[in-house]
Amino acid sequence: MSQQLPGVGIVETQYFDCESELQLTSGLVLPGFRLAFETYGHLNAQRDNAILLLHALSGDAHAAGYHSPSDRKPGWWDEMVGPGRAFDTNKYFFICSNVLGGCKGSTGPNSINPLTGKRWASDFPVLTIKDMVAAQVHLIDYLGIQRLFGVAGGSMGGFQAIEWMIAHADRVNSAILLATTASSSAHAIAWNAIGRQAIVRDPKWRGGHYPLDDAPVDGLSVARMIGHITYLSDASLSRKFPERFQGGDAPVYTLADEFALESYLNYQAQRFNERFDANSYLYITKAMDYWDGTRGYADLNEALAHWRKPTLIVSFDSDWLYPTRDAKTIAQAVGEDATFIELSSPAGHDAFLIESAMQTPIIQRFLRQTEMVIA
Amino acid sequence: MSQQLPGVGIVETQYFDCESELQLTSGLVLPGFRLAFETYGHLNAQRDNAILLLHALSGDAHAAGYHSPSDRKPGWWDEMVGPGRAFDTNKYFFICSNVLGGCKGSTGPNSINPLTGKRWASDFPVLTIKDMVAAQVHLIDYLGIQRLFGVAGGSMGGFQAIEWMIAHADRVNSAILLATTASSSAHAIAWNAIGRQAIVRDPKWRGGHYPLDDAPVDGLSVARMIGHITYLSDASLSRKFPERFQGGDAPVYTLADEFALESYLNYQAQRFNERFDANSYLYITKAMDYWDGTRGYADLNEALAHWRKPTLIVSFDSDWLYPTRDAKTIAQAVGEDATFIELSSPAGHDAFLIESAMQTPIIQRFLRQTEMVIA
Repeated sequence: MSQQLPGVGIVETQYFDCESELQLTSGLVLPGFRLAFETYGHLNAQRDNAILLLHALSGDAHAAGYHSPSDRKPGWWDEMVGPGRAFDTNKYFFICSNVLGGCKGSTGPNSINPLTGKRWASDFPVLTIKDMVAAQVHLIDYLGIQRLFGVAGGSMGGFQAIEWMIAHADRVNSAILLATTASSSAHAIAWNAIGRQAIVRDPKWRGGHYPLDDAPVDGLSVARMIGHITYLSDASLSRKFPERFQGGDAPVYTLADEFALESYLNYQAQRFNERFDANSYLYITKAMDYWDGTRGYADLNEALAHWRKPTLIVSFDSDWLYPTRDAKTIAQAVGEDATFIELSSPAGHDAFLIESAMQTPIIQRFLRQTEMVIA
Repeated sequence: MSQQLPGVGIVETQYFDCESELQLTSGLVLPGFRLAFETYGHLNAQRDNAILLLHALSGDAHAAGYHSPSDRKPGWWDEMVGPGRAFDTNKYFFICSNVLGGCKGSTGPNSINPLTGKRWASDFPVLTIKDMVAAQVHLIDYLGIQRLFGVAGGSMGGFQAIEWMIAHADRVNSAILLATTASSSAHAIAWNAIGRQAIVRDPKWRGGHYPLDDAPVDGLSVARMIGHITYLSDASLSRKFPERFQGGDAPVYTLADEFALESYLNYQAQRFNERFDANSYLYITKAMDYWDGTRGYADLNEALAHWRKPTLIVSFDSDWLYPTRDAKTIAQAVGEDATFIELSSPAGHDAFLIESAMQTPIIQRFLRQTEMVIA
C-alpha cells in the first residue's frame, strides 16, 4: 500500500535552541540545549492536530521522507508517516525530535560544553527518559502547541510516551504505545549493560574522551550486535538466512567467520558505526535502564492517576524483549481508556518498525475514535 | 537431600594420552591427543555399568567431589553424582572427560603442537561435536568398555550424547538428554558469534597468539556475560536482584556501573577469566554452532535410524536458548523409545545444572527402567 502513496517527499531537519537551563533528574543542570527535529503535515489554525513521534534507541529526528533526492533510504518510520498512511499527514501535524543525549543533531555527549568550550564526552550529565521528555516539552512550547493531539512511540519511544502520560497528562490528548514497557526488566537491562561493557572495555574508549575519528568502533560493534539480536526472534533470524553458511549449505570449518549471520552482524555493526556514537550509546542505554514509570509512585496505577485519555497499546507475540505481559501491565493501569492489542508477527521486537500493514488500520481506527472522544 | 549424603569425596583427575591420529571432520588430522578425565563409582566385573557424563561449554572433567579438602566448591554436577544421587555411584561407574578443544587438561588450542613444539593457539584445527565424541570413543576403548550403560549430558553435553546415539549406537545402551537440541538454532549461533566477535576484536587477542599472562580478558568477559544471560530467564535474573541498584532502591545516576546486575556480571566475567581460555572459547563455541545432528542425513529420523534404545529427554519451560520445541523434535525422531518430560522451573537454561531435586527422581526412574529393558 505504502508503495503507491507519495509519502512526505523532501524534508529538512530543523533546530530548536533552548536557552533555559534544564533541571535534570540527577540533580545536575544542563545549561541550555539544542533539539534537532522534523515536522510532517501542517499545523492547523487551532494548533490542536499535532502528534509527537518518539524514537527508539538508534532512531533520530528523521522519521519520514528524504533529505535529498539522492538518499537511498527514507526516514526510519516512512512506511507509517505520510498522506493516507497510519500517521496521516493530510490530517495531522507530526513532530519528531532527536532525543537529548543523542548524536543526530540534539545536545548530547558529543556537543560542546558551553562552560568549557570542549566536547562534553563522558562529562555529559547522565540523563533519564524524564529529562528527554522535559526537553520535548520546551520544543512543544516553542512550536506554540498547548496540547498535543497525541504522542506515539515504540520501544524507548514508548517509554517517552508513557512519561508524557505520567508527568504531562494536561499537555496530551492520547497516546500510542508500541512494543514497550512501563519499567525496564532485568533481562533488558542486562543486554544494555553488556553492550556498555563492550564499549568501555574497548581501549579506544579512553574513559570516554576519544577523538571522533578514532572512536571505540569495536566496542560499539559488539554492543550493536547484541542489541540487534534482541530485536529479532529466532524465527525471523532463521528466515534471514535460508543458507546457513556464506559458502552455501556445507561448512568448510574455519576459525574465521563462515556463518551467514556472522557477516550480516559485522555488516550491521559497520553501518551502525557510520551513523552512531559510542558515548551516546552509553547515555541513551543508561536512560533506558533507569526507566521505571513507577519511580516516585506506589505503583503504575498511581503514576497514571491523572491520565484519563484514549490509549492504544500494541504488543507483538514474538517480541521477547518487551513481551506482551509488559503491555498488559500498562493496559491494566490505564484501565477503561486502554485499547490493548497483541499482534501476531514473527519479526520480534522490530515488528513495530517493520509490520506497517498490520499496524496501519489499528492506528487509523484509534485516531478516528480519539477524534470523536475529543470532539 | 544431597546435603545429607556424603557425595563422592576426594577425587583425582586422570589423563589418557592417545597416540593414534584422530581424523577430524574438517579433513585435518590431529597427531594424537590427551583427554583429562575423572571417574566416580566402580566399574563392575562385566564392565557394563559405565555411564559417560558429558559437559557443557564451560564445564570440565571435574563433575563431582573435591580435588582437595580445602576446595571451596565441588565439581559442577556434584548435586547429581554420588551415592544415592540421580547418578548413583553405588550402582554405576561414571566417567567425565574434558572435551577436545578444552582448556582443563585435554588437548586444545593451548596445548603444544608436537610438530612445532609451540602452542597451537589459533593454528589448532577447528573441531566439531563429532570430533569430541570420536576422542571419547578412544577413551572408552582405553578403559576396556565395550558398551556404555548410558551417556548423559545437558546443553552441549546433550549435543555429544546425541552424536553418540547417531554415530555410535552400538556402543551405548541408553541416553539422557537435558536442555538440549539436535541442531543449533540461528538465535543460539548468533549469541556465540557475538561472543567470538568480542574476543577477536579485543586487541589483546593478537590473532590468537597471545601470551597466556596477557590474554584478551575483556573480550572473554563480554563473551561470558552474553552467555551467562542466555542461560537465565528474566524471572531468575529478577530474583537474583531484589534491589535493583548496588546502593539500594534509588539510583544516583552515574555513567559508572550502578545496577546490581552490572557488578554481578563483572564478577562472573572475572571469575570466568580465572578458569577459562579465550581460544578454547572460540573453538568450543564454533563446534557448538556447527552442531547439526542431521548433517549428512535426510533428517533426524534418518540420523537416528539405528538408535533403538531407552532415551530420556528433559526440557525446562523457561529455557529460551534450547526451548521445549527442540526437545520435542528429538523425542519425535527417537519415537517409542523416548521418554519426554518438560519440567517447570524459573531457572532458564541453567536449570539442568541447578534443579537437582526435580531431575533426580526422573533420572533414577529412567535408569531403573533401562536396567529392566537391558536385562
